[in-house]
Amino acid sequence: MSVFSDSPPFNLTFIIMLDTILRTLDSRRQQSLAGLTQFLSIPSISAKPQSKPDMQRCAQWVVDQFSSAGLQAQVMPTGGHPLVLAKNKHQPGRPTVLLYGHYDVQPPEPLEQWTTPPFEPTIRNGAIYARGSTDDKGQVWAHIEAISAWQAHGGLPVNITAIIEGEEEIGSENLESFVRQHRDELRADIAVISDTDQFAKGLPAITYGLRGLVYMQVTLTGADHDVHSGLYGGVAPNPANELCKLLGTLHDSQGRVNIPGFYDDVEALSPQERHAWAKLPFDEKHLLVELRAPGLTGETGYTPIEREWARPTLDINGITSGYQGPGAKTIIPSTASAKVSMRLVPHQDPIKIRDAFAKALQDRCPKNVKLEVACHSQTAAVLVPHDSPAMQLAADAMEIGFGIKPTLIRGGGSIPVVLLFKNVLAIDTLLAGFGLPDDRAHSPNEKFELDALHGGTRTAAALYEKLAGLTY
Amino acid sequence: MSVFSDSPPFNLTFIIMLDTILRTLDSRRQQSLAGLTQFLSIPSISAKPQSKPDMQRCAQWVVDQFSSAGLQAQVMPTGGHPLVLAKNKHQPGRPTVLLYGHYDVQPPEPLEQWTTPPFEPTIRNGAIYARGSTDDKGQVWAHIEAISAWQAHGGLPVNITAIIEGEEEIGSENLESFVRQHRDELRADIAVISDTDQFAKGLPAITYGLRGLVYMQVTLTGADHDVHSGLYGGVAPNPANELCKLLGTLHDSQGRVNIPGFYDDVEALSPQERHAWAKLPFDEKHLLVELRAPGLTGETGYTPIEREWARPTLDINGITSGYQGPGAKTIIPSTASAKVSMRLVPHQDPIKIRDAFAKALQDRCPKNVKLEVACHSQTAAVLVPHDSPAMQLAADAMEIGFGIKPTLIRGGGSIPVVLLFKNVLAIDTLLAGFGLPDDRAHSPNEKFELDALHGGTRTAAALYEKLAGLTY
Repeated sequence: MSVFSDSPPFNLTFIIMLDTILRTLDSRRQQSLAGLTQFLSIPSISAKPQSKPDMQRCAQWVVDQFSSAGLQAQVMPTGGHPLVLAKNKHQPGRPTVLLYGHYDVQPPEPLEQWTTPPFEPTIRNGAIYARGSTDDKGQVWAHIEAISAWQAHGGLPVNITAIIEGEEEIGSENLESFVRQHRDELRADIAVISDTDQFAKGLPAITYGLRGLVYMQVTLTGADHDVHSGLYGGVAPNPANELCKLLGTLHDSQGRVNIPGFYDDVEALSPQERHAWAKLPFDEKHLLVELRAPGLTGETGYTPIEREWARPTLDINGITSGYQGPGAKTIIPSTASAKVSMRLVPHQDPIKIRDAFAKALQDRCPKNVKLEVACHSQTAAVLVPHDSPAMQLAADAMEIGFGIKPTLIRGGGSIPVVLLFKNVLAIDTLLAGFGLPDDRAHSPNEKFELDALHGGTRTAAALYEKLAGLTY
Repeated sequence: MSVFSDSPPFNLTFIIMLDTILRTLDSRRQQSLAGLTQFLSIPSISAKPQSKPDMQRCAQWVVDQFSSAGLQAQVMPTGGHPLVLAKNKHQPGRPTVLLYGHYDVQPPEPLEQWTTPPFEPTIRNGAIYARGSTDDKGQVWAHIEAISAWQAHGGLPVNITAIIEGEEEIGSENLESFVRQHRDELRADIAVISDTDQFAKGLPAITYGLRGLVYMQVTLTGADHDVHSGLYGGVAPNPANELCKLLGTLHDSQGRVNIPGFYDDVEALSPQERHAWAKLPFDEKHLLVELRAPGLTGETGYTPIEREWARPTLDINGITSGYQGPGAKTIIPSTASAKVSMRLVPHQDPIKIRDAFAKALQDRCPKNVKLEVACHSQTAAVLVPHDSPAMQLAADAMEIGFGIKPTLIRGGGSIPVVLLFKNVLAIDTLLAGFGLPDDRAHSPNEKFELDALHGGTRTAAALYEKLAGLTY
């Protein structure tokens, strides 16, 4: 009896089938790469207004892939960029998997730092180089390939609903209302997202924690026009001077964020996690070589992994003011502005942090300049249960995919949709990603390793088979 | 005898002649404006490499004007943009005046703030609006018109050598070597520059002091590429964070420049000057309306006029780092850089200040970013004697030009050539300028009042007549 409940007959069929699927995928590596190359050639930059037609084209391209695999797929309009919604024929009595990914990419600038153009995918050193290759088109593509293979061999063993959105890189502004409006249609047992990294090459990983994000815009205005720095130096307020002074107060000498209340709700790291992470093969020197930086930064008292995964941070993402061309221009600028984002850890409330940030600036800003603070986006950190049956199934799938048992990790990035699915659909998310930490997501020369693409495609195929056995 | 020495016969002739010249200029206002409009239509932006052909065209245009007036004029190549050299036939026994001006202009950006395009001169509200109108083409043009009028009526009463250079707005990098190489050819008794302001409308002024300038470029580099602010936040050094922190240290809470040694050589203001300046009709509220700023800035303990004319300052002229486009991009930038300039007062040594600035940054910069500091240009402050016979002659000329006795003022800007002429040619400079403080030099909607143009042209004509009586 217990033998049967461990591996019921219908699951055995799928196991035999999985072998066929994996062999199919192993033989299709070139075709798979050709498909991904098409996907990566579309400059679907959600942040740029002029990319609208490319966003539409990219969404349609994704729909076409799902349609070819026999899914019902369509481009769904939102208040911003459209998203792709795809479904196979749902059968009662099977678990339903909600696959989430995104087809939009970060702006590719600075262009001159790319070895090959960001939207002309190029293969070298066993990797494909293009904007969006690892974040997130390559990982979405792994799932599309796995789904196609299953569909070509009698169909997926689970019910699937896929949302591939077009606004992840700009804060998923329209996703929440979409999910709320289509709550019934999106009902599922578990969500799957592949938009995270392995721990390192040869060390596949499942992510159980992510940081939150609060992304702010700060603008100071002095005179309503730039003025001559000689004729007005000493009288006209200088918003660039003041912005530096203001933002310069946001860290203390220990690298801690200097905003009242910022650490109030931060959960201390558990000794267990610190111990487990200390055993991970991390090499600070290797990181310095990867970054080619003179040194690291961060809060004293924590290891780099702890600072990245479990401590909150504040970074200026961009700053602009006055004359930035060649040579010298002797002006006092009229305005100065900065984009500043904070990564949050579990229990920090993004609304509270947003307001604390604004208040700290208001309190510290001198009266001779006008301060404006706005919020681009905010999301809380997440921790998903790492001892659930689904997590175990995902680990098994990844072992099949890569041939190595995955490790459990947290990540420094943010995937707000995990919280959204938890809050609106009441489901957990499996974060099974295939990228590598040195893939240069958001940077010039972003890449996705061909082995990661293949291992990821195999993992996705195995995951659908494993999740068919999910009791719900 | 004393009657004759006060007004010798040849000077009487010139006085009669001056009346004719002034009447000519009064009748030529429209033609004069048409000429200036041509001058202002040439986008001679010295800071922009792509403006090279326009710089050459503008220099040639100036040569053509001098040639039309019967001067020997030519475009002289330098290591950078060419300068214009013009001379009338020098006669022994007459004073020689070295006229200096510049035909290059500041970059016009931000373009969207111009009511009419910067290089399409437009007349409204009794002023001509264009980049370079007050700084310095309009003022140079006043001299060309005055010279032309004298030349049309028998010739200038003095020997004149004119240098109209093309690199003033980028630090006059090649002027010094030109002046040194042509020292004999440029020998003169007095220099005249019209590149300063009246104190206010109806209050013409002669400037006897200018501040110096040290213009620096600061660049910080962390990783050699932008990285994901989630995946690397807390480990990758952030040069934008560090640059703000660094530049944020450069002022203290009293608005003083916080660089060791910065004030060592600063000369205290004399009670006489403070007393005289306190009586000038200055209205802080009027300045705030002109700037449309929430408040002023500056060192405590000094009035706005004192801060602008006689106290050193430090201003960020531009700052750039990371993503500056619409929306949000979650990167830690690879580099951050700023243009920072300091205005110096008499006795401050620009080299010492440059080095003190660099050292302060080096001492304060953390080791996880690479710091580079460069100097765009540097020049000391100047004070010219304000009780000399030449100064009195200039005051007389300005009274003839504007119908009002000028006042003696200092200025906040910098005109390095004053020092160059003192050091290399051993001559003093008369700073007789016709601009107004609200002309928006270096800003969008730069203007030059038509009354200033006319009064300036008359002043220049009278000045050449007055300087003919200079004993040397």
